[in-house]
Amino acid sequence: MNEKLKRLKEIMLIVKKYRHALGLLNFDFETIAPVKSQDEEADVINFFANELFKITNGDEMKSLIEDLYREKDEMIDLRDRSLIEKLHENLEKTKKFTPEFDFKLNQAYSDAYSSWLKAKGKADYSLFKGDFEKLLNLQEQAIALRENKFESLYDNYLNDCEKGVLQADLDRFFDELKQGLIALIGKINASDHKIRTDFLTRFVPVYKQEEFSKYLLTLNGYDFSKGALATTEHPFTSDIAENDARVTTHYYENSFVSNLFTIIHEGGHAIFMQNEPKEDHEHFINDYVTNGMHESVSRFYENVIGRSQAYIHLIYPKFIENFPEFADVSEREFYEGVNVVKPSLIRTEADEVTYGLHVVIRYEMEKAICNKQITLDEVPQKWNELYKKYLGVSVPDDAKGVLQDVHWSGGFGYFPSYALGNCYNAIYYKKMQKEIPVDELVRKGDLESIKEWLKQNVFAKANLLTPKEWLFDICGEDLSPKPFLDYLNAKYADIYKF
Amino acid sequence: MNEKLKRLKEIMLIVKKYRHALGLLNFDFETIAPVKSQDEEADVINFFANELFKITNGDEMKSLIEDLYREKDEMIDLRDRSLIEKLHENLEKTKKFTPEFDFKLNQAYSDAYSSWLKAKGKADYSLFKGDFEKLLNLQEQAIALRENKFESLYDNYLNDCEKGVLQADLDRFFDELKQGLIALIGKINASDHKIRTDFLTRFVPVYKQEEFSKYLLTLNGYDFSKGALATTEHPFTSDIAENDARVTTHYYENSFVSNLFTIIHEGGHAIFMQNEPKEDHEHFINDYVTNGMHESVSRFYENVIGRSQAYIHLIYPKFIENFPEFADVSEREFYEGVNVVKPSLIRTEADEVTYGLHVVIRYEMEKAICNKQITLDEVPQKWNELYKKYLGVSVPDDAKGVLQDVHWSGGFGYFPSYALGNCYNAIYYKKMQKEIPVDELVRKGDLESIKEWLKQNVFAKANLLTPKEWLFDICGEDLSPKPFLDYLNAKYADIYKF
Repeated sequence: MNEKLKRLKEIMLIVKKYRHALGLLNFDFETIAPVKSQDEEADVINFFANELFKITNGDEMKSLIEDLYREKDEMIDLRDRSLIEKLHENLEKTKKFTPEFDFKLNQAYSDAYSSWLKAKGKADYSLFKGDFEKLLNLQEQAIALRENKFESLYDNYLNDCEKGVLQADLDRFFDELKQGLIALIGKINASDHKIRTDFLTRFVPVYKQEEFSKYLLTLNGYDFSKGALATTEHPFTSDIAENDARVTTHYYENSFVSNLFTIIHEGGHAIFMQNEPKEDHEHFINDYVTNGMHESVSRFYENVIGRSQAYIHLIYPKFIENFPEFADVSEREFYEGVNVVKPSLIRTEADEVTYGLHVVIRYEMEKAICNKQITLDEVPQKWNELYKKYLGVSVPDDAKGVLQDVHWSGGFGYFPSYALGNCYNAIYYKKMQKEIPVDELVRKGDLESIKEWLKQNVFAKANLLTPKEWLFDICGEDLSPKPFLDYLNAKYADIYKF
Repeated sequence: MNEKLKRLKEIMLIVKKYRHALGLLNFDFETIAPVKSQDEEADVINFFANELFKITNGDEMKSLIEDLYREKDEMIDLRDRSLIEKLHENLEKTKKFTPEFDFKLNQAYSDAYSSWLKAKGKADYSLFKGDFEKLLNLQEQAIALRENKFESLYDNYLNDCEKGVLQADLDRFFDELKQGLIALIGKINASDHKIRTDFLTRFVPVYKQEEFSKYLLTLNGYDFSKGALATTEHPFTSDIAENDARVTTHYYENSFVSNLFTIIHEGGHAIFMQNEPKEDHEHFINDYVTNGMHESVSRFYENVIGRSQAYIHLIYPKFIENFPEFADVSEREFYEGVNVVKPSLIRTEADEVTYGLHVVIRYEMEKAICNKQITLDEVPQKWNELYKKYLGVSVPDDAKGVLQDVHWSGGFGYFPSYALGNCYNAIYYKKMQKEIPVDELVRKGDLESIKEWLKQNVFAKANLLTPKEWLFDICGEDLSPKPFLDYLNAKYADIYKF
């Protein structure tokens, strides 16, 4: 067994190099690559992804994984066993793929991305539909080739994104979340408290936003010696290597708040990446944090910390120093302004309360498509209906509607993780508050202690456990939207005075 | 033959993908990669460079190249034949390398680069010497393994950089150049004309320099849809793909002129890359422009155009509009200021006249090291002596002396190409002036016509011919520093009024 494990790890070192190169290529593609070379760069990405497939699904690797999997119970090192289990689980999904099929699937992702981009530019869903359909068909074929699979198509997607959190869980979860949010929005709408928002659209030049972004990232505990900040159309964080977690953002000169919370959000992802256990990297199991776990941390920094009174108190003096043109805005006005609740069209710009309903809509859409309750032709109309129903807004065009997010060009299943993330962090936030004086620490700028708590409680076993196991391990609780709804109700009762 | 050529081109398509990825990795390494991940990224680069070696020096490729080389005279397509000749020439150099030797050589480059960086940071040549020596020894071994080689070690380095321009040519060339420059500097020193330089060190914030850089690049004909602008410690231009030529620069807030001419220089390289014949890309022969040819174009834009009265006249109004704090500087003062001649320590910041002497020093150093006339221990002392002798300046430490340039961490032979570039462009500039009204075109901002002339005359055959053939093809002239010295004498007689 030891010889085999040794050989497997030699191959994993090569796999790591491919992932580094691919991570970088993808980062470049989304940030710096010039318009006219994007097709060529996409080809390069697909080529190397396929070369990597040939290694990870090659005969040697297959037999190493299968042999070691049979002997896994004898493994002493927990992380070695975990690596074998993870590799085996992935192999079960792809072992019947030919390299040609893998290439076709990657090509379908690129094509869907590229037509989504064009379609969004022209606000015309019909330009996306063809490649969207091709991708979904190919993904269905890919699932059909799996060794072990769920009966329901959507459960396969969900499980890929958030292991063990399936449609049955999510139906209950979203139902409770939806009722709670609608009730809260009702109270907010009934409030006659006026929130000042005029300053939110004041012009702030890009270079000043960039400077402030670097200050915020450093303040929150992001380490620039192991990362970088770049700009992109659709912000993301990129886990390129153990010492390289990069943050991206998008600056809008007439909406500095957009970048402010994007930076804190993406910085949260990056702080997670920079503080995963060193042993996880050494055992090649550092890529297994689920989307929901990741979003729990990014949205914790963005909302629970970033949009708190304590944090606004902390950054307000520096903000006014850097942007003296905002001196007429008081700390409280600033706090209320960045927390104003207003149903809107765009998920990424939504407030903390209505945000969940954007996710509910996507969940219902994905479920309906997967379960063949609506056709792809009906997608925009259904989307617009749901926005009217849940948020009361009319969608003017596909760019501000069904095409706003990139995610579907990569398939289904990601969106629920945003709502799950909010609920995970509301659960562990309760525990954090019992153990450390969060509010006081934030007020005095000790974000280091927050990071340390997350490191010990949240990051430590994230690569080892499924989301449900991990949540139970942290707080002994099961998944529920209740702590999140409680958190929102308390916060907004104070802001909207009900 | 057709079947073999077809197969060879299939492999070249894969080679192109590796080069794209490696180009990008190198670009990233020099621009964005965080400090703490550089070692890891260097390992990734060396890994993929070695994978590429295994393809280009693999058995299939070897026999394809050798078979096709024997049949090359029957090839109808000039570019196909050229490709085979070039691949064969490279193969003759590396066919006796094992993959392990290739890896060791690449590793030696990384190590030398990394210790150069540390040594420069601490201004201590002794920290570089060990890896420098290892690299030079390995390069000597590599040359010893060549199928065809020159008797003199230095000629091998020179020929690799500037095919066909060897020590015998350069001895004559630099001797004439040196005499001419020393005579000209004598005249300038004797002049009592005072040039205003106070404004050259005025503070200009990075973001304003960046904005102006984009304006200049676009003005000169650089196409941002096929490129990008980034920052780095040691500016370079990166030829990543047919539609991706990236410019880098370094902003000094107390020396805006540094970036001004870096941008025009690097933009020149990029304009060359963006305007190579499409057929060269299609035939995989687009990577064969020599350093000297490339520097001829970059230094043409930087100096012949960029530092001309006409160009300063063109950009002056926009400059004053963007930087109103310079309104007290007249157009003529600006022109003279950016052309002030002053012997100095740093090559990249030298004026057009003394620049050549910086190259002379490096040429004499490289020759003396290769011909074992000095030991590696004596390098800093010799360097400092030559700076005293030719430029009359005292070198305060190694960082401002022998460690200032990165080049030697990649071996010898590059430096002469800077001086050659100046002389090449002085030769074709004479022809250009006869054929189009350069001065008038620049004054009115028609840089497009300049680019078009270069495209038809300078870029068209650069991948197909050796430097001497190419120069003769453009203007029917042989290499000589005389036109360059004539150009300098006329320009500086006007500035220094002698």
